[in-house]
Amino acid sequence: MEIFYSNDFHGNICRLDKDESGHCVRVLRHKSGDIISVIDGEGTMYECRITDDDPREVRAEISKGFENWGRHPYNLHMAVCPTKNNDRYEWMLEKSTEIGLDRISPVIGERSERKVFKTERAGKILLSAAKQSLKSVIPVISEPETVREFIQKYGKTETKEQDGKILRMIAYCFDTTETEKSSVKKVLDSFNGNNIIILIGPEGDFTVSEAEYAISEGFVPIHLGDSRLRTETAAVVACTAVYLHFTK
Amino acid sequence: MEIFYSNDFHGNICRLDKDESGHCVRVLRHKSGDIISVIDGEGTMYECRITDDDPREVRAEISKGFENWGRHPYNLHMAVCPTKNNDRYEWMLEKSTEIGLDRISPVIGERSERKVFKTERAGKILLSAAKQSLKSVIPVISEPETVREFIQKYGKTETKEQDGKILRMIAYCFDTTETEKSSVKKVLDSFNGNNIIILIGPEGDFTVSEAEYAISEGFVPIHLGDSRLRTETAAVVACTAVYLHFTK
Repeated sequence: MEIFYSNDFHGNICRLDKDESGHCVRVLRHKSGDIISVIDGEGTMYECRITDDDPREVRAEISKGFENWGRHPYNLHMAVCPTKNNDRYEWMLEKSTEIGLDRISPVIGERSERKVFKTERAGKILLSAAKQSLKSVIPVISEPETVREFIQKYGKTETKEQDGKILRMIAYCFDTTETEKSSVKKVLDSFNGNNIIILIGPEGDFTVSEAEYAISEGFVPIHLGDSRLRTETAAVVACTAVYLHFTK
Repeated sequence: MEIFYSNDFHGNICRLDKDESGHCVRVLRHKSGDIISVIDGEGTMYECRITDDDPREVRAEISKGFENWGRHPYNLHMAVCPTKNNDRYEWMLEKSTEIGLDRISPVIGERSERKVFKTERAGKILLSAAKQSLKSVIPVISEPETVREFIQKYGKTETKEQDGKILRMIAYCFDTTETEKSSVKKVLDSFNGNNIIILIGPEGDFTVSEAEYAISEGFVPIHLGDSRLRTETAAVVACTAVYLHFTK
């Protein structure tokens, strides 16, 4: 099954951009009259009939819409420090999208070796992984910010009214603070909602002060088991833990 | 922490092979008298003092041994059909080793597009991932065989005496048989042992007859949730499910 993406819907007409149109007409040889599947990136898949097979701008008429198509029953926002090797981060983006992710924040920790992150390429990976794995929602990528800025924005004090409904977790490895850590599974099992935020640190882990700040802002310290996981593996394991928790 | 591997232990002396010796002496500049950590690949890590820093063959004296070092509390054997793109399979080998795997069988299904698999390179990836993630056990890679041969070898009829202690699962996607599938989590929760075998199919899934044969040989049909996962992602999700199941 081939999926197209469009953010250009007017009434019952949708248009594909240049890249998608070229792929649709030149590569897959679709013609006027063909039925194609188009996601809006926000949760709906439309079955459309091509009315104009222009390879620079395909137009299609919507015949049916499927809401919440390929959606998972939770909302997961992961904040993951960029890895030194960018391929590893991109792999994590692809896999987490396949498994089920809603938003990703590349965050820069005090011990991050990589301080710069370009979101454009990441956005393309998220789009293509969402299409490949038949999801109608494309995970959103946030602009990079520091771990502290992220905590300040998403910590409990900023969203008081919803606090009981959001589970915030921070996965860190080193025993640098005296706080007890529970396993991600245990913490998920004791949570009744479906809004989840997880913070994953850089290769050198969070600093003690970053971890303490997160904990003071309502992030529950968790561990991901006894294995020593790389940053990108930790993110995929955390994403899988959430995914399996909501799998019946 | 840097880990070396050796399979050459005599009394309290261990020798590193040419690759490991070169890495130890030429790259990391270790000298006689230095303490290094050497795994035997089977579950023990030895603290050793270098007695001869020959870059072609390092010799070291064992001072301490740590049994079950970096071990996980289960035994997981995954049989995974090679993916068309070899990089994806190698990535799966690396990640599953990091998370916790004991044996991997590349199996060829009737719908496998790739029928040939070289184990030599895979073995190197398993070794390097085990060292990197501080494990003393290197997952074993089996020689390729067909899905049917694998089922015949590891199905319930061949190992009757231990049957209650082994959980066999087959993850397949298409609803081609009428058997009900439970989630991997549910099946793990109802199992008391720690010996687990999981079969993961190729891009085009198992054939109905392969799946039926597996089920008749005691493999429990499972699903891995609602997301449409690539072969290599399915393997990592299954491995993570087992890992998290045994995480306290």
